[in-house]
Amino acid sequence: MGNRAISQAVIGRLPRYYRYLGELLESGVERISSNALSKRMKVTASQIRQDLNNFGGFGQQGYGYNVKYLYTEIGKILGLEQKHHIVIIGAGNLGQALANYTAFEKRGFILKGIFDVDPALEGRKIRGVPIRMMSELKDFLSENHIEIAVLTIPKTHAGEVARKLVDNGVKAIWNFAHTDLNLPEHIVVENVHLSESLMRLSYNIARYEEKQREKKE
Amino acid sequence: MGNRAISQAVIGRLPRYYRYLGELLESGVERISSNALSKRMKVTASQIRQDLNNFGGFGQQGYGYNVKYLYTEIGKILGLEQKHHIVIIGAGNLGQALANYTAFEKRGFILKGIFDVDPALEGRKIRGVPIRMMSELKDFLSENHIEIAVLTIPKTHAGEVARKLVDNGVKAIWNFAHTDLNLPEHIVVENVHLSESLMRLSYNIARYEEKQREKKE
Repeated sequence: MGNRAISQAVIGRLPRYYRYLGELLESGVERISSNALSKRMKVTASQIRQDLNNFGGFGQQGYGYNVKYLYTEIGKILGLEQKHHIVIIGAGNLGQALANYTAFEKRGFILKGIFDVDPALEGRKIRGVPIRMMSELKDFLSENHIEIAVLTIPKTHAGEVARKLVDNGVKAIWNFAHTDLNLPEHIVVENVHLSESLMRLSYNIARYEEKQREKKE
Repeated sequence: MGNRAISQAVIGRLPRYYRYLGELLESGVERISSNALSKRMKVTASQIRQDLNNFGGFGQQGYGYNVKYLYTEIGKILGLEQKHHIVIIGAGNLGQALANYTAFEKRGFILKGIFDVDPALEGRKIRGVPIRMMSELKDFLSENHIEIAVLTIPKTHAGEVARKLVDNGVKAIWNFAHTDLNLPEHIVVENVHLSESLMRLSYNIARYEEKQREKKE
Protein backbone atom coordinates (compact mmCIF):
# COMPACT_ATOMS: atom_id res chain seq x y z
CA MET A 1 0.00 0.00 0.00
CA GLY A 2 1.47 3.32 -1.06
CA ASN A 3 1.05 5.44 2.02
CA ARG A 4 3.82 7.89 1.26
CA ALA A 5 1.40 10.66 0.44
CA ILE A 6 -0.39 10.52 3.79
CA SER A 7 0.34 13.59 5.84
CA GLN A 8 1.92 13.44 9.28
CA ALA A 9 -1.25 15.01 10.70
CA VAL A 10 -3.36 12.10 9.45
CA ILE A 11 -0.78 9.58 10.65
CA GLY A 12 -0.93 11.20 14.07
CA ARG A 13 -4.67 10.54 14.18
CA LEU A 14 -4.51 6.91 13.05
CA PRO A 15 -3.87 5.39 16.51
CA ARG A 16 -7.08 6.98 17.75
CA TYR A 17 -9.06 5.65 14.78
CA TYR A 18 -7.50 2.27 15.43
CA ARG A 19 -8.57 2.35 19.08
CA TYR A 20 -12.15 3.31 18.23
CA LEU A 21 -12.43 0.74 15.46
CA GLY A 22 -11.08 -1.90 17.85
CA GLU A 23 -13.78 -1.00 20.38
CA LEU A 24 -16.46 -1.21 17.67
CA LEU A 25 -15.17 -4.64 16.63
CA GLU A 26 -15.24 -5.83 20.23
CA SER A 27 -18.85 -4.78 20.54
CA GLY A 28 -19.76 -6.55 17.29
CA VAL A 29 -20.31 -3.52 15.04
CA GLU A 30 -19.53 -4.43 11.41
CA ARG A 31 -20.31 -1.22 9.58
CA ILE A 32 -20.33 2.39 10.67
CA SER A 33 -21.14 5.62 8.87
CA SER A 34 -18.84 8.61 9.07
CA ASN A 35 -21.63 10.43 10.91
CA ALA A 36 -21.94 7.78 13.60
CA LEU A 37 -18.15 7.56 13.96
CA SER A 38 -18.06 11.35 14.12
CA LYS A 39 -20.41 11.37 17.10
CA ARG A 40 -18.40 8.76 18.97
CA MET A 41 -15.02 10.32 18.30
CA LYS A 42 -16.13 13.95 18.60
CA VAL A 43 -14.49 15.02 15.38
CA THR A 44 -16.42 16.25 12.35
CA ALA A 45 -17.73 13.71 9.84
CA SER A 46 -15.97 15.61 7.08
CA GLN A 47 -12.65 15.26 8.90
CA ILE A 48 -13.25 11.53 9.18
CA ARG A 49 -14.12 11.24 5.49
CA GLN A 50 -11.04 13.24 4.51
CA ASP A 51 -8.77 11.18 6.75
CA LEU A 52 -10.11 7.80 5.76
CA ASN A 53 -10.33 8.62 2.06
CA ASN A 54 -6.54 8.66 2.11
CA PHE A 55 -6.64 4.91 2.11
CA GLY A 56 -9.07 4.73 -0.77
CA GLY A 57 -12.08 2.54 -1.26
CA PHE A 58 -13.04 2.07 2.37
CA GLY A 59 -16.20 4.11 2.45
CA GLN A 60 -19.12 3.38 0.20
CA GLN A 61 -21.76 6.06 -0.14
CA GLY A 62 -24.70 5.06 2.00
CA TYR A 63 -23.10 1.89 3.31
CA GLY A 64 -20.58 3.29 5.73
CA TYR A 65 -17.19 1.85 6.53
CA ASN A 66 -16.38 -1.81 6.90
CA VAL A 67 -15.02 -1.75 10.46
CA LYS A 68 -12.88 -4.87 10.29
CA TYR A 69 -11.31 -3.99 6.93
CA LEU A 70 -10.48 -0.48 8.07
CA TYR A 71 -9.12 -1.75 11.39
CA THR A 72 -6.88 -4.26 9.62
CA GLU A 73 -5.60 -1.78 7.03
CA ILE A 74 -4.82 0.90 9.60
CA GLY A 75 -3.12 -1.77 11.71
CA LYS A 76 -0.89 -2.63 8.74
CA ILE A 77 0.04 1.01 8.19
CA LEU A 78 0.89 1.35 11.87
CA GLY A 79 3.17 -1.69 11.60
CA LEU A 80 1.06 -3.70 14.07
CA GLU A 81 1.02 -6.84 11.93
CA GLN A 82 4.66 -7.43 12.70
CA LYS A 83 5.97 -8.84 15.94
CA HIS A 84 8.41 -6.68 17.90
CA HIS A 85 10.63 -8.00 20.67
CA ILE A 86 10.98 -5.61 23.56
CA VAL A 87 12.94 -5.25 26.77
CA ILE A 88 12.06 -3.04 29.71
CA ILE A 89 14.92 -1.24 31.41
CA GLY A 90 13.94 -0.33 34.96
CA ALA A 91 11.72 -2.66 37.00
CA GLY A 92 10.30 0.00 39.32
CA ASN A 93 6.57 0.61 39.58
CA LEU A 94 6.28 2.06 36.10
CA GLY A 95 8.37 -0.68 34.49
CA GLN A 96 6.29 -3.31 36.25
CA ALA A 97 3.06 -1.61 35.24
CA LEU A 98 4.11 -1.71 31.59
CA ALA A 99 5.37 -5.30 31.90
CA ASN A 100 1.98 -6.33 33.24
CA TYR A 101 0.02 -4.63 30.51
CA THR A 102 -1.05 -7.58 28.37
CA ALA A 103 -2.72 -5.44 25.69
CA PHE A 104 0.73 -4.60 24.32
CA GLU A 105 1.36 -8.30 23.71
CA LYS A 106 -1.89 -8.56 21.77
CA ARG A 107 -0.64 -5.83 19.42
CA GLY A 108 2.58 -7.68 18.70
CA PHE A 109 4.93 -6.24 21.31
CA ILE A 110 6.48 -9.31 22.93
CA LEU A 111 8.25 -8.82 26.25
CA LYS A 112 11.56 -10.72 26.22
CA GLY A 113 13.46 -9.23 29.14
CA ILE A 114 13.30 -6.90 32.14
CA PHE A 115 16.43 -5.34 33.62
CA ASP A 116 17.22 -3.44 36.79
CA VAL A 117 20.20 -2.57 38.99
CA ASP A 118 18.52 -3.59 42.26
CA PRO A 119 19.81 -7.04 43.37
CA ALA A 120 16.66 -7.49 45.50
CA LEU A 121 14.65 -7.77 42.27
CA GLU A 122 16.91 -10.33 40.58
CA GLY A 123 15.06 -13.42 39.40
CA ARG A 124 11.60 -12.13 40.28
CA LYS A 125 9.24 -12.86 37.43
CA ILE A 126 6.63 -10.69 35.77
CA ARG A 127 4.33 -12.60 33.43
CA GLY A 128 6.94 -15.37 33.38
CA VAL A 129 9.80 -13.05 32.40
CA PRO A 130 12.58 -12.91 35.01
CA ILE A 131 14.10 -9.61 36.09
CA ARG A 132 17.79 -9.63 35.14
CA MET A 133 20.65 -7.45 36.31
CA MET A 134 21.92 -4.63 34.09
CA SER A 135 25.33 -6.32 34.02
CA GLU A 136 23.74 -9.05 31.88
CA LEU A 137 22.21 -6.61 29.38
CA LYS A 138 24.98 -6.60 26.78
CA ASP A 139 25.18 -10.39 26.51
CA PHE A 140 21.40 -10.64 26.45
CA LEU A 141 21.15 -8.19 23.56
CA SER A 142 23.79 -10.02 21.56
CA GLU A 143 21.97 -13.33 22.02
CA ASN A 144 18.44 -12.06 21.42
CA HIS A 145 17.07 -9.98 18.59
CA ILE A 146 15.57 -7.02 20.48
CA GLU A 147 14.09 -4.15 18.49
CA ILE A 148 12.52 -1.94 21.13
CA ALA A 149 13.67 -0.91 24.60
CA VAL A 150 11.32 0.71 27.09
CA LEU A 151 13.25 3.10 29.30
CA THR A 152 11.75 3.58 32.76
CA ILE A 153 14.80 4.71 34.72
CA PRO A 154 15.75 8.07 36.27
CA LYS A 155 16.99 10.72 33.86
CA THR A 156 20.48 10.70 35.38
CA HIS A 157 21.33 7.37 33.72
CA ALA A 158 18.97 7.48 30.75
CA GLY A 159 21.42 8.90 28.21
CA GLU A 160 24.19 6.46 29.01
CA VAL A 161 21.87 3.42 29.04
CA ALA A 162 20.21 4.51 25.79
CA ARG A 163 23.58 4.67 24.04
CA LYS A 164 24.45 1.22 25.32
CA LEU A 165 21.16 -0.14 23.99
CA VAL A 166 21.71 1.42 20.58
CA ASP A 167 25.32 0.26 20.43
CA ASN A 168 24.01 -3.25 20.93
CA GLY A 169 21.45 -3.24 18.16
CA VAL A 170 18.26 -1.76 19.63
CA LYS A 171 16.47 0.26 16.95
CA ALA A 172 13.79 2.08 18.89
CA ILE A 173 13.34 3.50 22.36
CA TRP A 174 10.10 4.20 24.19
CA ASN A 175 11.41 6.78 26.59
CA PHE A 176 9.73 7.49 29.93
CA ALA A 177 12.83 9.10 31.47
CA HIS A 178 12.36 12.82 32.04
CA THR A 179 14.97 13.86 29.56
CA ASP A 180 15.48 13.95 25.81
CA LEU A 181 17.88 11.34 24.48
CA ASN A 182 20.53 12.43 22.02
CA LEU A 183 20.73 9.44 19.72
CA PRO A 184 21.69 8.90 16.07
CA GLU A 185 18.97 10.02 13.68
CA HIS A 186 18.06 6.56 12.47
CA ILE A 187 17.01 5.50 15.97
CA VAL A 188 13.27 5.83 16.54
CA VAL A 189 12.49 7.55 19.83
CA GLU A 190 8.99 8.02 21.22
CA ASN A 191 8.95 10.15 24.36
CA VAL A 192 6.34 9.97 27.10
CA HIS A 193 7.13 13.00 29.23
CA LEU A 194 4.56 12.70 32.00
CA SER A 195 5.60 15.89 33.76
CA GLU A 196 4.92 17.85 30.56
CA SER A 197 1.50 16.28 30.32
CA LEU A 198 0.79 17.35 33.89
CA MET A 199 1.90 20.90 33.05
CA ARG A 200 -0.56 21.05 30.16
CA LEU A 201 -3.25 20.00 32.62
CA SER A 202 -2.15 22.68 35.05
CA TYR A 203 -2.10 25.30 32.28
CA ASN A 204 -5.63 24.45 31.24
CA ILE A 205 -6.87 24.72 34.83
CA ALA A 206 -5.22 28.14 35.13
CA ARG A 207 -6.78 29.27 31.84
CA TYR A 208 -10.20 28.07 32.93
CA GLU A 209 -9.95 29.95 36.21
CA GLU A 210 -8.85 33.07 34.37
CA LYS A 211 -11.90 32.83 32.14
CA GLN A 212 -14.18 32.44 35.15
CA ARG A 213 -12.66 35.57 36.73
CA GLU A 214 -13.16 37.49 33.48
CA LYS A 215 -16.81 36.51 33.43
CA LYS A 216 -17.32 37.85 36.93
CA GLU A 217 -15.65 41.18 36.19
CA MET B 1 0.52 38.91 32.50
CA GLY B 2 -1.61 39.12 29.38
CA ASN B 3 -0.99 35.79 27.74
CA ARG B 4 -4.19 35.63 25.75
CA ALA B 5 -2.39 36.31 22.50
CA ILE B 6 -0.01 33.38 22.85
CA SER B 7 -0.84 30.68 20.34
CA GLN B 8 -1.69 27.13 21.33
CA ALA B 9 1.39 25.95 19.45
CA VAL B 10 3.65 28.06 21.67
CA ILE B 11 1.76 26.98 24.79
CA GLY B 12 2.30 23.40 23.74
CA ARG B 13 6.04 23.98 23.68
CA LEU B 14 6.25 25.76 27.07
CA PRO B 15 6.50 22.59 29.21
CA ARG B 16 9.60 21.57 27.28
CA TYR B 17 11.17 25.01 27.71
CA TYR B 18 10.31 24.79 31.39
CA ARG B 19 12.03 21.41 31.71
CA TYR B 20 15.20 22.60 29.97
CA LEU B 21 15.34 25.83 31.95
CA GLY B 22 14.89 23.81 35.15
CA GLU B 23 17.84 21.61 34.19
CA LEU B 24 19.96 24.69 33.44
CA LEU B 25 19.06 26.16 36.84
CA GLU B 26 19.98 22.91 38.57
CA SER B 27 23.39 22.99 36.93
CA GLY B 28 23.94 26.61 37.94
CA VAL B 29 23.55 28.29 34.54
CA GLU B 30 22.27 31.85 34.99
CA ARG B 31 22.17 33.13 31.43
CA ILE B 32 21.85 31.40 28.09
CA SER B 33 21.79 32.64 24.52
CA SER B 34 19.12 31.51 22.09
CA ASN B 35 21.91 29.81 20.11
CA ALA B 36 23.10 27.75 23.07
CA LEU B 37 19.54 26.86 24.04
CA SER B 38 18.90 25.96 20.40
CA LYS B 39 21.74 23.43 20.43
CA ARG B 40 20.54 21.81 23.65
CA MET B 41 16.90 21.64 22.65
CA LYS B 42 17.46 20.81 18.96
CA VAL B 43 15.11 23.47 17.71
CA THR B 44 16.22 26.49 15.67
CA ALA B 45 17.41 29.60 17.49
CA SER B 46 14.89 31.64 15.52
CA GLN B 47 12.06 29.42 16.78
CA ILE B 48 13.28 29.96 20.33
CA ARG B 49 13.48 33.73 19.84
CA GLN B 50 10.00 33.80 18.31
CA ASP B 51 8.53 31.69 21.11
CA LEU B 52 10.17 33.50 23.98
CA ASN B 53 9.57 36.97 22.53
CA ASN B 54 5.90 36.32 23.21
CA PHE B 55 6.58 37.07 26.83
CA GLY B 56 8.44 40.27 26.07
CA GLY B 57 11.61 41.63 27.55
CA PHE B 58 13.27 38.36 28.39
CA GLY B 59 16.05 38.37 25.85
CA GLN B 60 18.57 41.13 25.66
CA GLN B 61 20.64 41.34 22.50
CA GLY B 62 24.06 39.92 23.28
CA TYR B 63 23.24 39.06 26.87
CA GLY B 64 21.04 36.04 26.38
CA TYR B 65 18.12 35.03 28.54
CA ASN B 66 17.97 35.23 32.30
CA VAL B 67 17.30 31.57 33.08
CA LYS B 68 15.69 31.99 36.48
CA TYR B 69 13.41 34.83 35.39
CA LEU B 70 12.27 32.92 32.31
CA TYR B 71 11.76 29.73 34.34
CA THR B 72 9.65 31.57 36.90
CA GLU B 73 7.55 33.42 34.32
CA ILE B 74 6.84 30.29 32.28
CA GLY B 75 6.00 28.48 35.52
CA LYS B 76 3.42 31.19 36.30
CA ILE B 77 1.85 30.88 32.85
CA LEU B 78 1.66 27.12 33.29
CA GLY B 79 -0.11 27.60 36.62
CA LEU B 80 2.69 25.92 38.57
CA GLU B 81 2.84 28.60 41.26
CA GLN B 82 -0.47 27.39 42.63
CA LYS B 83 -0.91 24.32 44.75
CA HIS B 84 -3.25 21.64 43.45
CA HIS B 85 -4.68 18.87 45.57
CA ILE B 86 -4.86 15.55 43.78
CA VAL B 87 -6.23 12.06 44.31
CA ILE B 88 -5.18 8.93 42.47
CA ILE B 89 -7.93 6.50 41.54
CA GLY B 90 -6.46 3.05 41.05
CA ALA B 91 -3.56 1.85 43.21
CA GLY B 92 -2.17 -0.68 40.75
CA ASN B 93 1.40 -0.49 39.50
CA LEU B 94 0.81 2.66 37.48
CA GLY B 95 -1.08 4.42 40.26
CA GLN B 96 1.66 3.53 42.72
CA ALA B 97 4.36 4.68 40.30
CA LEU B 98 2.66 8.08 40.01
CA ALA B 99 2.06 8.27 43.78
CA ASN B 100 5.77 7.69 44.37
CA TYR B 101 6.89 10.32 41.92
CA THR B 102 8.01 13.13 44.24
CA ALA B 103 8.80 15.57 41.44
CA PHE B 104 5.06 16.22 41.04
CA GLU B 105 4.92 17.41 44.65
CA LYS B 106 7.75 19.85 43.98
CA ARG B 107 5.67 21.40 41.20
CA GLY B 108 2.70 21.96 43.46
CA PHE B 109 0.68 18.79 42.91
CA ILE B 110 -0.04 17.56 46.44
CA LEU B 111 -1.23 13.97 46.82
CA LYS B 112 -4.15 13.86 49.27
CA GLY B 113 -5.68 10.44 48.66
CA ILE B 114 -5.33 7.13 46.84
CA PHE B 115 -8.33 4.91 46.14
CA ASP B 116 -8.82 1.35 44.96
CA VAL B 117 -11.42 -1.41 45.03
CA ASP B 118 -9.05 -4.13 46.23
CA PRO B 119 -9.55 -4.74 49.99
CA ALA B 120 -6.03 -6.24 50.18
CA LEU B 121 -4.63 -2.75 49.57
CA GLU B 122 -6.75 -0.97 52.20
CA GLY B 123 -4.68 1.06 54.65
CA ARG B 124 -1.37 0.49 52.89
CA LYS B 125 0.52 3.75 52.71
CA ILE B 126 2.39 5.36 49.86
CA ARG B 127 4.49 8.34 50.92
CA GLY B 128 2.39 8.51 54.06
CA VAL B 129 -0.93 8.57 52.20
CA PRO B 130 -3.16 5.59 52.99
CA ILE B 131 -4.97 3.68 50.26
CA ARG B 132 -8.72 4.04 50.80
CA MET B 133 -11.60 2.05 49.41
CA MET B 134 -13.70 3.45 46.55
CA SER B 135 -16.74 3.31 48.82
CA GLU B 136 -15.18 6.16 50.84
CA LEU B 137 -14.53 8.36 47.79
CA LYS B 138 -17.70 10.44 47.87
CA ASP B 139 -17.34 11.40 51.53
CA PHE B 140 -13.66 12.10 51.07
CA LEU B 141 -14.32 14.47 48.17
CA SER B 142 -16.97 16.35 50.11
CA GLU B 143 -14.61 16.82 53.07
CA ASN B 144 -11.50 17.72 51.06
CA HIS B 145 -11.01 20.26 48.34
CA ILE B 146 -9.68 18.11 45.50
CA GLU B 147 -9.05 19.71 42.13
CA ILE B 148 -7.39 16.97 40.12
CA ALA B 149 -8.02 13.23 39.90
CA VAL B 150 -5.54 10.87 38.28
CA LEU B 151 -7.37 7.98 36.67
CA THR B 152 -5.34 4.76 36.49
CA ILE B 153 -8.12 2.19 36.29
CA PRO B 154 -9.28 -0.11 33.46
CA LYS B 155 -11.33 1.52 30.73
CA THR B 156 -14.44 -0.48 31.64
CA HIS B 157 -15.05 1.62 34.76
CA ALA B 158 -13.33 4.84 33.74
CA GLY B 159 -16.40 6.66 32.42
CA GLU B 160 -18.56 5.92 35.42
CA VAL B 161 -15.83 6.83 37.93
CA ALA B 162 -14.99 10.03 36.05
CA ARG B 163 -18.61 11.17 36.24
CA LYS B 164 -18.68 10.46 39.97
CA LEU B 165 -15.52 12.53 40.45
CA VAL B 166 -16.92 15.44 38.48
CA ASP B 167 -20.28 15.26 40.27
CA ASN B 168 -18.35 15.65 43.52
CA GLY B 169 -16.38 18.72 42.56
CA VAL B 170 -13.25 17.50 40.78
CA LYS B 171 -12.31 19.99 38.05
CA ALA B 172 -9.65 18.17 36.10
CA ILE B 173 -8.80 14.61 35.19
CA TRP B 174 -5.43 13.21 34.21
CA ASN B 175 -6.67 10.19 32.33
CA PHE B 176 -4.52 7.07 31.87
CA ALA B 177 -7.49 4.79 31.14
CA HIS B 178 -7.49 3.59 27.54
CA THR B 179 -10.65 5.41 26.61
CA ASP B 180 -11.86 8.95 26.03
CA LEU B 181 -14.04 10.37 28.78
CA ASN B 182 -17.23 12.13 27.83
CA LEU B 183 -17.40 14.90 30.38
CA PRO B 184 -18.92 18.39 30.50
CA GLU B 185 -16.88 20.91 28.53
CA HIS B 186 -15.69 22.90 31.52
CA ILE B 187 -13.86 19.86 32.91
CA VAL B 188 -10.17 19.82 32.00
CA VAL B 189 -9.08 16.42 30.69
CA GLU B 190 -5.50 15.52 29.82
CA ASN B 191 -5.21 12.09 28.25
CA VAL B 192 -2.14 9.87 28.38
CA HIS B 193 -2.97 7.11 25.91
CA LEU B 194 0.08 4.88 26.18
CA SER B 195 -1.10 2.42 23.56
CA GLU B 196 -1.34 5.25 21.01
CA SER B 197 2.18 6.31 21.86
CA LEU B 198 3.37 2.76 21.27
CA MET B 199 1.59 2.71 17.89
CA ARG B 200 3.41 5.87 16.82
CA LEU B 201 6.65 4.12 17.75
CA SER B 202 5.61 1.08 15.74
CA TYR B 203 4.63 3.24 12.75
CA ASN B 204 8.00 4.97 12.76
CA ILE B 205 9.84 1.64 12.84
CA ALA B 206 7.76 0.43 9.88
CA ARG B 207 8.47 3.66 7.98
CA TYR B 208 12.19 3.37 8.67
CA GLU B 209 12.27 -0.22 7.42
CA GLU B 210 10.36 0.79 4.31
CA LYS B 211 12.95 3.49 3.60
CA GLN B 212 15.79 1.00 4.03
CA ARG B 213 14.13 -1.37 1.55
CA GLU B 214 13.68 1.49 -0.94
CA LYS B 215 17.38 2.32 -0.69
CA LYS B 216 18.33 -1.24 -1.52
CA GLU B 217 16.06 -1.45 -4.55
